[in-house]
Amino acid sequence: MRNVRNDFPILKKVHNGHQIVYFDNAATTQKPLQVIHAIVELLEYHNGNPHRGAHILSVEAGTLYDEARLAVQRFIHAPSVDEIIFVRNTTEALNLIARSYGETHLQKGDKIVIPISEHHSNLVTWQRVCAETGAELVYMYLDEAGHFTPEDLEKIDEHTKIVAFAAVSNVYGMKRPVKELVAKAHAVGAVAVVDGAQSTPHMKTDVQDMDCDFYVFSGHKMCGSAGTGVLYGKKALLEDMEPFLLGGDMIEYVAEQQTTYNVLPYKFEAGSQNVEGAVALKAAIEYLEDLGMEEIERHEHVLTARCLTGMQKIPHIHLIGSTDASEKTGVISFTIDGVHPHDAATILDSFGIAVRSGHHCAQPLGAHLGIEASNRASFYIYNTEEEVDYFLEKLPLVRKQMGYKD
Amino acid sequence: MRNVRNDFPILKKVHNGHQIVYFDNAATTQKPLQVIHAIVELLEYHNGNPHRGAHILSVEAGTLYDEARLAVQRFIHAPSVDEIIFVRNTTEALNLIARSYGETHLQKGDKIVIPISEHHSNLVTWQRVCAETGAELVYMYLDEAGHFTPEDLEKIDEHTKIVAFAAVSNVYGMKRPVKELVAKAHAVGAVAVVDGAQSTPHMKTDVQDMDCDFYVFSGHKMCGSAGTGVLYGKKALLEDMEPFLLGGDMIEYVAEQQTTYNVLPYKFEAGSQNVEGAVALKAAIEYLEDLGMEEIERHEHVLTARCLTGMQKIPHIHLIGSTDASEKTGVISFTIDGVHPHDAATILDSFGIAVRSGHHCAQPLGAHLGIEASNRASFYIYNTEEEVDYFLEKLPLVRKQMGYKD
Repeated sequence: MRNVRNDFPILKKVHNGHQIVYFDNAATTQKPLQVIHAIVELLEYHNGNPHRGAHILSVEAGTLYDEARLAVQRFIHAPSVDEIIFVRNTTEALNLIARSYGETHLQKGDKIVIPISEHHSNLVTWQRVCAETGAELVYMYLDEAGHFTPEDLEKIDEHTKIVAFAAVSNVYGMKRPVKELVAKAHAVGAVAVVDGAQSTPHMKTDVQDMDCDFYVFSGHKMCGSAGTGVLYGKKALLEDMEPFLLGGDMIEYVAEQQTTYNVLPYKFEAGSQNVEGAVALKAAIEYLEDLGMEEIERHEHVLTARCLTGMQKIPHIHLIGSTDASEKTGVISFTIDGVHPHDAATILDSFGIAVRSGHHCAQPLGAHLGIEASNRASFYIYNTEEEVDYFLEKLPLVRKQMGYKD
Repeated sequence: MRNVRNDFPILKKVHNGHQIVYFDNAATTQKPLQVIHAIVELLEYHNGNPHRGAHILSVEAGTLYDEARLAVQRFIHAPSVDEIIFVRNTTEALNLIARSYGETHLQKGDKIVIPISEHHSNLVTWQRVCAETGAELVYMYLDEAGHFTPEDLEKIDEHTKIVAFAAVSNVYGMKRPVKELVAKAHAVGAVAVVDGAQSTPHMKTDVQDMDCDFYVFSGHKMCGSAGTGVLYGKKALLEDMEPFLLGGDMIEYVAEQQTTYNVLPYKFEAGSQNVEGAVALKAAIEYLEDLGMEEIERHEHVLTARCLTGMQKIPHIHLIGSTDASEKTGVISFTIDGVHPHDAATILDSFGIAVRSGHHCAQPLGAHLGIEASNRASFYIYNTEEEVDYFLEKLPLVRKQMGYKD
């Protein structure tokens, strides 16, 4: 993959005398000039409220918005552009599915099955569906390395109506057997909801090949701007669902006491569209497509393998989940004996290295593993082997700075 | 007010040989360089996921996000920063109130009272609350000029639990007697929901003076960026409400089967925050504060008075609602005899004038008035008397171009 660092102005930032090493990409990614310029160009030349006027700016903004939807369709290989709903982010998309599908289609006796490793947005949402409908939330607990077990898969039974899971876990960083899980769900008549927040930025996405019923992701984790995400859903399901947000543009006709709704995808897009976010996402998609998703995956694999190998040689470091880089994207969660993850992140920050600390919005996994918090290093297209080596060089200093005489 | 046109690059746009006259500000406003630069500076120097890491970029983004919330608090004169919830836009804010307050606090026998002129987002939302709870949606029909009548106000009775209305109607452009309506609501124990989408950009906002229970508005209609809006709510009400979107950052502790929620304002902000949008809104607020909200209101009044006077001299033009500029912000809706509003907008566009055509997301008002669609010219800080005169010069040509020999 070509060196892209010059496209990202923020990577030149110096902190504490060190050029910043940004390893918090699972939280949010940085933006290339191509994306920043697309936002500025919209705001300086084409800004308007789309589909709501016959004037040039409304038309131009509308065209840009429609083109962004087509870019998303192409990027995730969706059969129809009507199945691409622009939402605010992954979280909103999952709430939309939970409210507009889960709460209206489930009842007492039904089961929702999810892995214990899910992000809160793909977990608390289902808790509410269960509270509202009387359905049961059932967990697949995974093995010690984070793999699905045969017992896990047996939980997907004839009472199961929804199977929801991340295509890549934001803690384990492990790629899930998406097609196998979707097939399992379909075999019992359940719908499969795939959280693509951590997969879409890092590998080729083909919703038709996965055959999932819903697929959701966020723009800001893939070089796009905040405030824009995508819900893909199979047309028959989306058409059958009640709208989530009500308001302008999602209606067909509003009478005083009742309303008929617009066709897909507009039925789910109430209020003024976030054209900036859509334009940024299109620019991000084109940027990633130009690099090539296979190339991106390969690049991250090299970094991940190098980092995992190096970290395993450092005493007192504990990796969470599989240490086989081929099973993972560029997400490495770990703990350090005797060091609170927040302290570890602060010390690494003093070397200019940005890693995350906390529960990574996956407290049930933490409770299950007996780990309240951990650190997470996560890579993207602009990270380099030199940065990994610098991280591996500084990592042993964390315990030293905490006063341990290893 | 100082001339601000050089701050807005898009105003130099030439369309059909004419420099663009942007009169579609009620749909969305243009962005000054100050706002565009704030977005770029964030993305090039400070971008991170706030409150989720101990590293410099997370901290910087978090600080900027918190500062934006403080700016909003100051701008609308809210008592506490905890009462400022960042949402996607006005529409989402109203859906949040409808779902998290309306659906849980109302029951059969209760009434929701709204003016017939409301935007769909402040109307269809209440239809659903009524469908879910058995409450009744009651309309205040207003007089011919768009004023509240004594009969309207009598509808706010002891059965009323919610009174919802726009502080400025997006069709009439008329300033509503907010304090009187809020007092009426409170006198019967109802909560007052004020839609500030069309008021906040154009005049001073003081939620404490209004004493409203909820106040909502969008960033993109006030020089901010798309994808960011604000919900203000009185603390006691917000604390009593269930969260709307579930996910990351809005939780306190997540166990496998239940969750406790974070404190205000975080309880209502699930998922990755839109820091860009918040930063843009702060820059927009500072820009408007620097101009002075009273000055902005005065400037728009001059344009509106001039335009109303001029339009009344043109045959076949029908103004919707009051023609008293002192009752209005810079929003003028009108129809032209024998000309479909879409054709009118297209012809005006050929002269470089951007006005809106359509139902303005207020179909019940249209049905009540017997007007399926209309045109709307709406002004903002960068519009000038020369532009108004140019519009008044071209307006009579619309019928001519349609073939009428007036």
